Amino acid sequence: MYRVGIDLGGTNIKAGIVDENQKILAQVSAPTGAERPAEEVIADMAALVRQLLEELAIDESALAGIGVGCPGLVDAQAGIVRYSNNISWENVALVEQLGKSFSCTIRISNDANCAALGEVKAGAARDVSNAILLTLGTGVGGGIILDGKVFEGSNAGGAELGHISMIMGGEPCTCGRRGCVEAYASATALIRDAKRAAAADKKSLMNQMCDGKTENMNGKIPFDAALAGDQAAKEVVENYYTYLAEAIANYVNIFRPDVVLLSGGICNQGTRLTKPVEEHLSFLCFGGDRAFVPPVRCAVLGNDAGIIGSANLI
Amino acid sequence: MYRVGIDLGGTNIKAGIVDENQKILAQVSAPTGAERPAEEVIADMAALVRQLLEELAIDESALAGIGVGCPGLVDAQAGIVRYSNNISWENVALVEQLGKSFSCTIRISNDANCAALGEVKAGAARDVSNAILLTLGTGVGGGIILDGKVFEGSNAGGAELGHISMIMGGEPCTCGRRGCVEAYASATALIRDAKRAAAADKKSLMNQMCDGKTENMNGKIPFDAALAGDQAAKEVVENYYTYLAEAIANYVNIFRPDVVLLSGGICNQGTRLTKPVEEHLSFLCFGGDRAFVPPVRCAVLGNDAGIIGSANLI
Repeated sequence: MYRVGIDLGGTNIKAGIVDENQKILAQVSAPTGAERPAEEVIADMAALVRQLLEELAIDESALAGIGVGCPGLVDAQAGIVRYSNNISWENVALVEQLGKSFSCTIRISNDANCAALGEVKAGAARDVSNAILLTLGTGVGGGIILDGKVFEGSNAGGAELGHISMIMGGEPCTCGRRGCVEAYASATALIRDAKRAAAADKKSLMNQMCDGKTENMNGKIPFDAALAGDQAAKEVVENYYTYLAEAIANYVNIFRPDVVLLSGGICNQGTRLTKPVEEHLSFLCFGGDRAFVPPVRCAVLGNDAGIIGSANLI
Repeated sequence: MYRVGIDLGGTNIKAGIVDENQKILAQVSAPTGAERPAEEVIADMAALVRQLLEELAIDESALAGIGVGCPGLVDAQAGIVRYSNNISWENVALVEQLGKSFSCTIRISNDANCAALGEVKAGAARDVSNAILLTLGTGVGGGIILDGKVFEGSNAGGAELGHISMIMGGEPCTCGRRGCVEAYASATALIRDAKRAAAADKKSLMNQMCDGKTENMNGKIPFDAALAGDQAAKEVVENYYTYLAEAIANYVNIFRPDVVLLSGGICNQGTRLTKPVEEHLSFLCFGGDRAFVPPVRCAVLGNDAGIIGSANLI
């Protein structure tokens, strides 16, 4: 049997057919056009699935089901996207509406949950069945995999690992609260901190690296400048490791996963990112060396994680 | 079938026989004598079980099993107490050792997990199957119940809800880290803050209430003084609500439980405690009114929670 995985993003809808060996046999994509009514976006999702079936000459009856990873607050049990800032959806009954076009099982989940599931099924955590994944991007998304399945929380709005406060009353977060993990460990937060440090130290190499305009700052510059010996950049990067480790230690003290996964552009740093975070963790996790401290790994599937993961909702 | 629940504490061992209606048919207790070798403590636990069986004239063959709630870092899967500060145990193979005296199933878990399970099976959360419980005492223990079962984490050392940092680098915690929930929301933390506030404001009623000696401070005084209109006490109490709500919102954003339970002496405050915390939560939880915000309730079983909960490990 085949499964379709759909990764619904703010910019593009990506869809793929996944076989029993977790291989993507074919994939297609289309612009989301998030400004349109949800019905039109969902019609395009259905068209992409038809396109995939035609391309592989597979009959719909050979489909075990369709899984969709969606940004925002997803009520997986009810099959409803409660709210998504990215695509401006509110209470969209996605499973019901997409179900008008297909008779197979349809399931939905948050996109970070799907990315985590993809990495556990076919990526950086395929040797384990319990993992936490953090997507370090514009925001911080979180996925929790327990016994090989997505853990959503008991009611909609769980598994929001980016919205755990670690510095109460600290930096403002997009969720309306202050001090969340997202406000310290997202790429956005790293860039904010690098901009501040560059502005405070005119001699910092980071200023040259963004051509004297801090609006050119990106998440790579502080790492590059730190590697070149720039003190201000080193502090930004060290602080970033500290924030990330503090957040991860909190998840470990709750879930004790087999592995912690990181994804997003910052992961291009590889072990420059994971090693110092692991060192901090060995001190921060409850029980010290009396308990298991999970390794930290970078995700490996890139964009495929969303497709493979959402297909595995089935 | 009957089950035995044993609540192993720093001061006393309490044991009870629980029937299928979650009723404690008989209970006995003995001093823990935590300074003795673990073998002796375990022998006393076995003797208490024999005493219960005799008292009710129940044959061992009618026992479905024995559950034990233990303080500290418990490896439920391996049946080993990895480390307990309270009773000075390290790597005690409790299930194996107690198993020498009984042929029935024996299971162990952390004491806060057992208290949570007890309240879900027979107490303040018996109408639901997903709950979080915080024990607000000397420290902050945490229990997580998912689908009516204890969630331990994937490896030993999970579900440590008291050791989630909420003010990174803040007050020192007993676990060696800083800023943990325990360092702000335990009774110990409340008393510390009340002592500081009383010392800083000599006119505060709290000073009179502890006879001019801050070493007499307890967790009731700031609440009583606040009720009498004392400004310093009001601030201490308001801050305590804020800390507790901040911690609970973090758990909600991960677990979205049906109910959040609080236990410990501070719960004598009843709705004076739960109402303001619930008000804070409605603003702090991710998704605001688009997602379910669980009610906060005080535990009702008192000491029985440990016995009923540990019996329900079976």
